[in-house]
Amino acid sequence: MRTDRKTGKTAKTPSVRNYRKKAGLPPGTLVYTGNNEVEPSLDLFSYNRSEISRVYPLNPAETESNIRQDRNNWLNICGLNNTETIELTGKTFAIHALLLEDVLNTESLPKIEIYDDTVFICLKMIRWNEEKLSIEAEQISFLIKNKLLISFQEREGDVFETVRARMLSGISKAREKGIDFLAYVLIDKIVDNYFLVLEKIEDEIENIESELLKDSDKITPIQLLHIKKQLILLRKYFYPLRDEVRKLLRDDNELIDRKTIKYLSDLHDHLQNIIHTTEGFRDTSTGLMELYSSNVSNKMNKIMKTLTVVGAIFIPLTFIAGIYGMNFDYMPELHFHYGYHIVMAGMALLGIGMVIYMRSRKWF
Amino acid sequence: MRTDRKTGKTAKTPSVRNYRKKAGLPPGTLVYTGNNEVEPSLDLFSYNRSEISRVYPLNPAETESNIRQDRNNWLNICGLNNTETIELTGKTFAIHALLLEDVLNTESLPKIEIYDDTVFICLKMIRWNEEKLSIEAEQISFLIKNKLLISFQEREGDVFETVRARMLSGISKAREKGIDFLAYVLIDKIVDNYFLVLEKIEDEIENIESELLKDSDKITPIQLLHIKKQLILLRKYFYPLRDEVRKLLRDDNELIDRKTIKYLSDLHDHLQNIIHTTEGFRDTSTGLMELYSSNVSNKMNKIMKTLTVVGAIFIPLTFIAGIYGMNFDYMPELHFHYGYHIVMAGMALLGIGMVIYMRSRKWF
Amino acid sequence: MRTDRKTGKTAKTPSVRNYRKKAGLPPGTLVYTGNNEVEPSLDLFSYNRSEISRVYPLNPAETESNIRQDRNNWLNICGLNNTETIELTGKTFAIHALLLEDVLNTESLPKIEIYDDTVFICLKMIRWNEEKLSIEAEQISFLIKNKLLISFQEREGDVFETVRARMLSGISKAREKGIDFLAYVLIDKIVDNYFLVLEKIEDEIENIESELLKDSDKITPIQLLHIKKQLILLRKYFYPLRDEVRKLLRDDNELIDRKTIKYLSDLHDHLQNIIHTTEGFRDTSTGLMELYSSNVSNKMNKIMKTLTVVGAIFIPLTFIAGIYGMNFDYMPELHFHYGYHIVMAGMALLGIGMVIYMRSRKWF
Amino acid sequence: MRTDRKTGKTAKTPSVRNYRKKAGLPPGTLVYTGNNEVEPSLDLFSYNRSEISRVYPLNPAETESNIRQDRNNWLNICGLNNTETIELTGKTFAIHALLLEDVLNTESLPKIEIYDDTVFICLKMIRWNEEKLSIEAEQISFLIKNKLLISFQEREGDVFETVRARMLSGISKAREKGIDFLAYVLIDKIVDNYFLVLEKIEDEIENIESELLKDSDKITPIQLLHIKKQLILLRKYFYPLRDEVRKLLRDDNELIDRKTIKYLSDLHDHLQNIIHTTEGFRDTSTGLMELYSSNVSNKMNKIMKTLTVVGAIFIPLTFIAGIYGMNFDYMPELHFHYGYHIVMAGMALLGIGMVIYMRSRKWF
Amino acid sequence: MRTDRKTGKTAKTPSVRNYRKKAGLPPGTLVYTGNNEVEPSLDLFSYNRSEISRVYPLNPAETESNIRQDRNNWLNICGLNNTETIELTGKTFAIHALLLEDVLNTESLPKIEIYDDTVFICLKMIRWNEEKLSIEAEQISFLIKNKLLISFQEREGDVFETVRARMLSGISKAREKGIDFLAYVLIDKIVDNYFLVLEKIEDEIENIESELLKDSDKITPIQLLHIKKQLILLRKYFYPLRDEVRKLLRDDNELIDRKTIKYLSDLHDHLQNIIHTTEGFRDTSTGLMELYSSNVSNKMNKIMKTLTVVGAIFIPLTFIAGIYGMNFDYMPELHFHYGYHIVMAGMALLGIGMVIYMRSRKWF
Repeated sequence: MRTDRKTGKTAKTPSVRNYRKKAGLPPGTLVYTGNNEVEPSLDLFSYNRSEISRVYPLNPAETESNIRQDRNNWLNICGLNNTETIELTGKTFAIHALLLEDVLNTESLPKIEIYDDTVFICLKMIRWNEEKLSIEAEQISFLIKNKLLISFQEREGDVFETVRARMLSGISKAREKGIDFLAYVLIDKIVDNYFLVLEKIEDEIENIESELLKDSDKITPIQLLHIKKQLILLRKYFYPLRDEVRKLLRDDNELIDRKTIKYLSDLHDHLQNIIHTTEGFRDTSTGLMELYSSNVSNKMNKIMKTLTVVGAIFIPLTFIAGIYGMNFDYMPELHFHYGYHIVMAGMALLGIGMVIYMRSRKWF
Repeated sequence: MRTDRKTGKTAKTPSVRNYRKKAGLPPGTLVYTGNNEVEPSLDLFSYNRSEISRVYPLNPAETESNIRQDRNNWLNICGLNNTETIELTGKTFAIHALLLEDVLNTESLPKIEIYDDTVFICLKMIRWNEEKLSIEAEQISFLIKNKLLISFQEREGDVFETVRARMLSGISKAREKGIDFLAYVLIDKIVDNYFLVLEKIEDEIENIESELLKDSDKITPIQLLHIKKQLILLRKYFYPLRDEVRKLLRDDNELIDRKTIKYLSDLHDHLQNIIHTTEGFRDTSTGLMELYSSNVSNKMNKIMKTLTVVGAIFIPLTFIAGIYGMNFDYMPELHFHYGYHIVMAGMALLGIGMVIYMRSRKWF
Repeated sequence: MRTDRKTGKTAKTPSVRNYRKKAGLPPGTLVYTGNNEVEPSLDLFSYNRSEISRVYPLNPAETESNIRQDRNNWLNICGLNNTETIELTGKTFAIHALLLEDVLNTESLPKIEIYDDTVFICLKMIRWNEEKLSIEAEQISFLIKNKLLISFQEREGDVFETVRARMLSGISKAREKGIDFLAYVLIDKIVDNYFLVLEKIEDEIENIESELLKDSDKITPIQLLHIKKQLILLRKYFYPLRDEVRKLLRDDNELIDRKTIKYLSDLHDHLQNIIHTTEGFRDTSTGLMELYSSNVSNKMNKIMKTLTVVGAIFIPLTFIAGIYGMNFDYMPELHFHYGYHIVMAGMALLGIGMVIYMRSRKWF
Repeated sequence: MRTDRKTGKTAKTPSVRNYRKKAGLPPGTLVYTGNNEVEPSLDLFSYNRSEISRVYPLNPAETESNIRQDRNNWLNICGLNNTETIELTGKTFAIHALLLEDVLNTESLPKIEIYDDTVFICLKMIRWNEEKLSIEAEQISFLIKNKLLISFQEREGDVFETVRARMLSGISKAREKGIDFLAYVLIDKIVDNYFLVLEKIEDEIENIESELLKDSDKITPIQLLHIKKQLILLRKYFYPLRDEVRKLLRDDNELIDRKTIKYLSDLHDHLQNIIHTTEGFRDTSTGLMELYSSNVSNKMNKIMKTLTVVGAIFIPLTFIAGIYGMNFDYMPELHFHYGYHIVMAGMALLGIGMVIYMRSRKWF
Repeated sequence: MRTDRKTGKTAKTPSVRNYRKKAGLPPGTLVYTGNNEVEPSLDLFSYNRSEISRVYPLNPAETESNIRQDRNNWLNICGLNNTETIELTGKTFAIHALLLEDVLNTESLPKIEIYDDTVFICLKMIRWNEEKLSIEAEQISFLIKNKLLISFQEREGDVFETVRARMLSGISKAREKGIDFLAYVLIDKIVDNYFLVLEKIEDEIENIESELLKDSDKITPIQLLHIKKQLILLRKYFYPLRDEVRKLLRDDNELIDRKTIKYLSDLHDHLQNIIHTTEGFRDTSTGLMELYSSNVSNKMNKIMKTLTVVGAIFIPLTFIAGIYGMNFDYMPELHFHYGYHIVMAGMALLGIGMVIYMRSRKWF
C-alpha cells in the first residue's frame, strides 16, 4: 500500500491485489494483471552498422513483413492491455505460451530464463512519483532471439529515449554489435535509473533527518513508515533480480558465452551496490525512528519539567498562604506587625531555594 | 492460537495440540490428528481426451472396480476421520503405510517425496475466515501414480470447483495431458489461493494502517499481534514447501523429467513471491506497531501538555490570590483603593505571559 | 537459570555449571557431570519374533552372561552416578573410552556419530515440570551395535513405558525387526514427547496471552522472560540435533542403508516441525512483550488522563474561588447581591466547558 | 549523508548522488563520478634491487618514455578529474576501456578482477575527519601488469609516504621482490589504516559511553546516529572487499600462484578482524542507545518523583488549610483556643507521615 | 572497552588500539602489539614414555642444545615483550617470519594454519577478572613440528599447571602419545577454561536477574551493557576459532590424519556448545534489558498513580473549600447552622467516592 504523504490517503499497491484477475483461470490463460489500460503501440527499429529504419506506429498485423532478416530488429511493445496483440505477436515469433503469460503477469518477481533459442528477462522499471513521494513500478520483459529483441512495457514513457536518439544518430556502439548488446544497454539504463530513484529516496531520508535534527513537528512516524514501505517494495524488486543474475553467473551454463558473462557480472555488481545502499537506507531509517522516539521522549521530559518546576515552587507556597488565610480566632502571627512581611520574605526564600535546587539538578 | 478479534476470545490452533492424539502410539499407526469429523466421501473422475465420467458419491468398497485402466483417474477423498476408508484405499492401491500415516497426520509440514512408482505431495489449503479475520488451514495430500491421482482433503469445500467444471465441459487442457498435469493444475489452484488469502491479510493491514493514520482508538496492539500470528502460521506453511520444491529443483533427480521441472520451477517462483510478500507484510506490521507506539506517546504528550499548560498558568495565580486571602492585620496592599484591580491586572499579565511563553514553545 | 515462576526464586540450570566437575581433569577421564545421584539399575530385554525375556534388575557383573547372542538385546542403564558400573559396561562391550565420556558428560550437545561397528546417538529427553512451569532435561545416549542396543539415562522415569508394554505383549512391530528399528522407536518416542512439552509451553503462552488480553495485572514480564528462557534452552537442544541429522542425510555415507535414511528423514521432518514451532513461539512471545508494554503505556495514559481531567477542571476553578477569597477593602463584586450566584454559575459553565472540550478529545 | 556533529548541519555523502553524472551516458563512457576536482599529477618510481629512480611530477605525455622495461615501475596517478590524462594512460598501457571506467566510477563497490595479463583491484582509502568526526573515503584502484603497477587515487595525500621513504632509502623489502609484492605492501597499508580509523571510532564510542555513564546532557541520540551511519558506510566498504578476497581464495584459480594466496589469505584475516570489530561496534552502539533511553526514562522518573512528593505532601495540607479558611458562621474549631496549634500539629504530622511513607518506598 | 563496574570508570580494551604499534611498519616486522611487558622466560619439557626432564628457566641462547631429538619436546615461552628472544627462537627452529609476526600480533583473530612441516594454531586464553567483572584475554600460539611443540603466551600464569603436574608424575596419557596429543591436551584445557569463564558470566547474569526480580535499585543498564560487551568480545574470540576448526574438518586435507580429525571434531563440538551458550546469554540479557525497562515503566506508573490519587481526591475538595472561603456579602449557605457540617460531610463523601472509584480501577 502506498500512503500519499501529502493527503494522508492511501492508494492500493499492485503487490498481490491484481493476482485476483488471474486466480479463477486455468494455467496458460493470457491475462494482463496490471492496471495500465493502454492500447498496445508497436515501435520497430531495424538496424545494422550502416543503416537504420524505424516504423512507428507499426500495425500489429504487419509486424512480420516489417522484420528485416538481414538486420538486427528491436520491437518495442508498449501497453499490455489488449491481449490479442500480445497473442498475435506470440504466434508471429513462435513464443511459448508460458513466456507470454509471464510477460502479462505483472505480479511475478524479476527473473531470467535461458532456453535453447530464447533468453527471457523480466524486471521492474521504476519511477519516482514526486507528488506522492513513492515509487511506481512497471514490469518490463525482454525476449532475445536470433537478430530480434522484443521488449514489452506496460505504458508509455520509459528510460530508453537517449538510447533511441543515439541509435538513430548513429553514435551508439549498439549499432555495431549484436542484438544482445542492445538488450544489455537497455537493462543497464533501467538499472542506472534504480540509482536515480535511490537518490530521490536518499533526498527524502536526508530531508526527514534534517527536520528531526531541528526537532521540527513536521516529521511524524508516518513519513518514516512510508519510506520503509518503499524500501520493502524495492527489496522485493532488487533481491530476486540479483539472485537470478548470481545464479546464472554460478552455473557453468554453456549457453552463455564469456562476453555475456562480463555483462551479467557488471549487472551483478550494480545490483549488489544497489542492495547494499538499500540496506544502508533501512538501517538509517531505523536510526531515524529511534531519533524520533527520543525527540518525543525529550519533549515529554521538557513538558514535565515545566510542570514540576511550577508545581514544586508554588504548591508549597500556596499552602503557606492558605495557612494564614485560616480563620482561627487565635493565630498570634496574624497580629505581629511585620508578620505579613516576614511570611512574604519566607515564601520568597523558599521559592528561591527551590529554584536553586532545581537549577543545580539542571532541570531548567 | 487464533484470537478471535471481534470477541477477544481465543481459539486453539491446530499447530501442536493435535499431536497428542498420536503421541502414545507406535510408529505406523493410522490416526487422524485433525479436528474435522467428516465421514469420507469419494469422488472419482475418469477421463481421456474424448471421454469423461464421474462417480460421486463413490462407495469406498467399489473404488477398484470403478477405476478405468485405459483412462486417467482422479480420486478425491474428502474427510479423513474414518481411518478404515483410508486404510481400505491404501490396500486397494498398494500405498505404503508410512505415506498413509503422513496423509492422516495433519500436523506435518508440507513436503514432497518421490518414490519409484509414486510421488507424494502434502501441503496446506488455506481459507480466510472473514468472521474471525484469521486463516484456516486444511491439509491436502496428493499421491501420483501411473494414470492415477488420489487427493485427500480434510473437509468439504475446496478451490477445485472451476477445475471440475472445466474438466467436465471439456475445455480444460488437463483433459489432453497426463495425470501429473492435473496434479499441477490442482496445486496451482491451491497456490493461487494463497495469493487471495494474502490479499485479505493486506486488506486487514491496510485497514489497520488507515485507522492508525486517523489516530483512531479502534486499533489496539491486539489486532497487530493477531495479524503477526497469522503471518507466523503462514511462514510455517510456506517456507517448508518452498524448500521442498527448491530441493527437488537442485537435485539431479532422474525421476523427474524436464516437463515436471518446468512445473516445479513455476511453483517455486510463485512460492518465492508469496514468501517475499509475507516478509514484506511482517516488516510493515513491525512498522505499524512503531506507529501505534508513537501514537500512544503522542497522545500522552498532548495530555501532559494540557495539564502542564493549565497548571503552569493557574497554580502561580492561585498562589497570588492566596497571598491576598491571608488574614494578617497589617497588609497595606489590601487597603489601597485600586489594590484589587492592580492585582487582577498583574495576574492577567502573568497569565498572558505564560500563554505567550508556552505558545512560543509550540505547546498548544 | 530457571526461575521458579511461583516463588520468584531462581534455580541453577545445568547449562554450563556442571562443566566445572570435569574442568580439572585430563581428557578421557570418566566423570558424570549431571546432578542426578542415582545408583545405576540395569534392565535387559532379549527378544526375537517369537520369544522375549526381561531381566530386571540385572546385576552389572552378570551383564555379559545374560546377553543372548541369538536374540536382539536392549540393555537400559538408568543412573550414571556410579562411574564404575559404566566403566564395567564399557569393558564388557568394548566401548571406546571417548564414547563413555560422552555418555557421562551431560553438558554435551546432541550428536550422532557413526563408527565402523557402532552408532552413537546422544540427545535430551525433556519433561515439563508443572510446578515450576519449566522444562527439565535429561541426557539419554544410545549405543547401537550388532544385535545390541544400550541406552543410558540419568534417572528413573522415561517415555518408554508404552514401548516396553507393547514389546512384552508381543504387539510391537519392533519384535519383528532389527535392533536399529527399536532404537528408532525409542528416539521417536523422545521426539514425540518434545511435541507434548511444546504443547505445555503453548498452553502457558496462551494463558499469558489471554491474561494480557484481559489487561490483567497477573502477568508481568517475568513470566515472558521465563518462557523465553525455556525456548532458549529448547533451541540449544533441538538445533544441534536437527543439524546432526541433516548432516547424516547429506553425506553419502555408505554405512547408513536406505532404510535408516527413511528413519532419519522422518526424524528430520519432525525436528524441522519442532524448530518451526519453537521459532513461532519465540515470535509470539516477542509480540506478547509488545502487548505488555503497550498495556503498561495505556494504563499510564489512563492514569494521566484522570489527573489531567481533574486538574484542568478544578485548578482554574480554585483560582477563581481564590480571587473572591482575597481580602481587599475595595472589591465591588463582593457586594453585588447576586455576585456569589453569578460566580458560581460562571464556574459551573467553565467546568462544563472543560468537560465538553475534553470529551470532544475523547479523553474520558 | 554525513551529519556534521558540531554544527548539526548535514553534508552530502558520495553514496549514490554522483551516479547522476553517469546516468545519462552510454556504457563505456569515461566519466569521473567523484567530487575531487584535482588536476592529475603523475609520480613514477622505477626500481630494482640495486637502483631506484623517481620522476615527479611526470608529464602525462612522457609516461611511456620514462617507463624502464628492465626495472619494476610504480606509476601513481593522483587526481581523476581530467579524464583525458586517464584516457591517455589507458592507451599507453593498453588498458581495457571498462577497467578505466571502473577506475573513474567512484561509486562502485570494492572489487578484485583477474584477467589474463592484468589484475585489477579497487578499494576505498579512508580517512578520519577529526573536525566532522566522520569518515572520508577515496577510491583507489590498482592495475598490476608485468613489471608495472599503476595506482589511481582521487586526491593528494595518502597512506603510502612511509613506503616511498623506505623504497628510496633502500631498506624496503619491496625493492627485492616483484611488482605484485609492492601492490600487496600498498594494500596492506590501506587496510592497516582501516584499523586506525576504527580506533578513532572506538575513541568516539568510548567518549559517548563515558558521557552517558556520567548521565551527562552532552550526548544526544544524534551522536549515536552519526556513529551508526559511519558504521553503515564502513560495512559497505568492508564486506564486499572481504567477499571478493574470499571468492578468490575459494576459486581454484590457476592464475593466482601460491605466494599470492598467502598475501590474500593475510588480507582476508585482517578484513575478517575489521568486520568482527565493526560488528562489535554496532552492537555496542545499540547498547549505548538503550543506555541513553534508560537515562532519559530515569530522568523522567526523577522529575515525576519530585512533583509527586511535593504534590502528595502539600495538596492535602492545602486542602486542610482551605477548610479552616471557610467563612461559615458556625465553625466551632475556629474558636478553640489551641485550634490553630492543633491543626498546625496535625498538618505537620500528616506531612511527616507522607514523607516517611514515600521514603519507605525509596522515592527520594 | 571494558567498563569497571564498581568504579564506573572505563579501561581500554586491546581490541584495535594496539594495532597502532604496528601500523607504521612494513609487513614482516616483528612487533609485540600486546600490553604485557614481561621478559620472556622459557620452560622446556623433554619426555618420552619412560623419562621426563624439565629445564626451567632455560637460557634462550641454550635452547637448541637442550632440545633432545630422541624425545618429545615442549618449549613454553612466556612473555613476548622482548622480540629478540622470539627472533632467536625463530632462527633456531626455522620458523617462517610471518608466523613469528602472527605470534606477536596479539590483535589477530584465532586461526589454524597447516604447512608442510608445521601446524600453527593461535587462540585466546581467557580469564575472569573478579574485581572488574570482565574478561581478560591473552593470546596463546602453538607451533607443532616434528617432536617439538612451542607454545607462546603473553604473561605468567596459565591453565596448564595440572597438565605439568600430571606429566611430571607420569600419570598423564600425553607421555605415551605423540607431540600433537600434548597440543590437543593443552588446547582442551584452554577450551575447558572457556566454560569456567562462561559460568562466571552466567553467575553475573543470574545475579542481575535476581536483583531485577526483586526490583532492586542496584541494577542499572550499565551492568547489562557491561555483560553485553563481554559477550561481544567472546563472540570475537569464539566464532573465528569455530570457523577455522570447521574449515579443517570440511577440507579433505591429507595432512591431517584421522586421529587428529577426532580431536578437531571434539574441539568443534565444545566450541559449538560454547557458542550456543554465548548466544543464549545474549538472548537472556536482551530479555533482562526488557525486564529492566518494564521495571522502570512500572515504577513510573506507581509514582504517577500516587500523584493522581492524591490530586484527584484533594484538588476538587480544595476547590469546594475555596468556594466557602469567598468573601461575598451574600452567601446564604455560610449562615446555615449546619452549613459547615454539611459541607464537611459532602467533602468526605466526595473523597470516599473518589477512593472507591479508583480502588475499583485497581489504582492502589
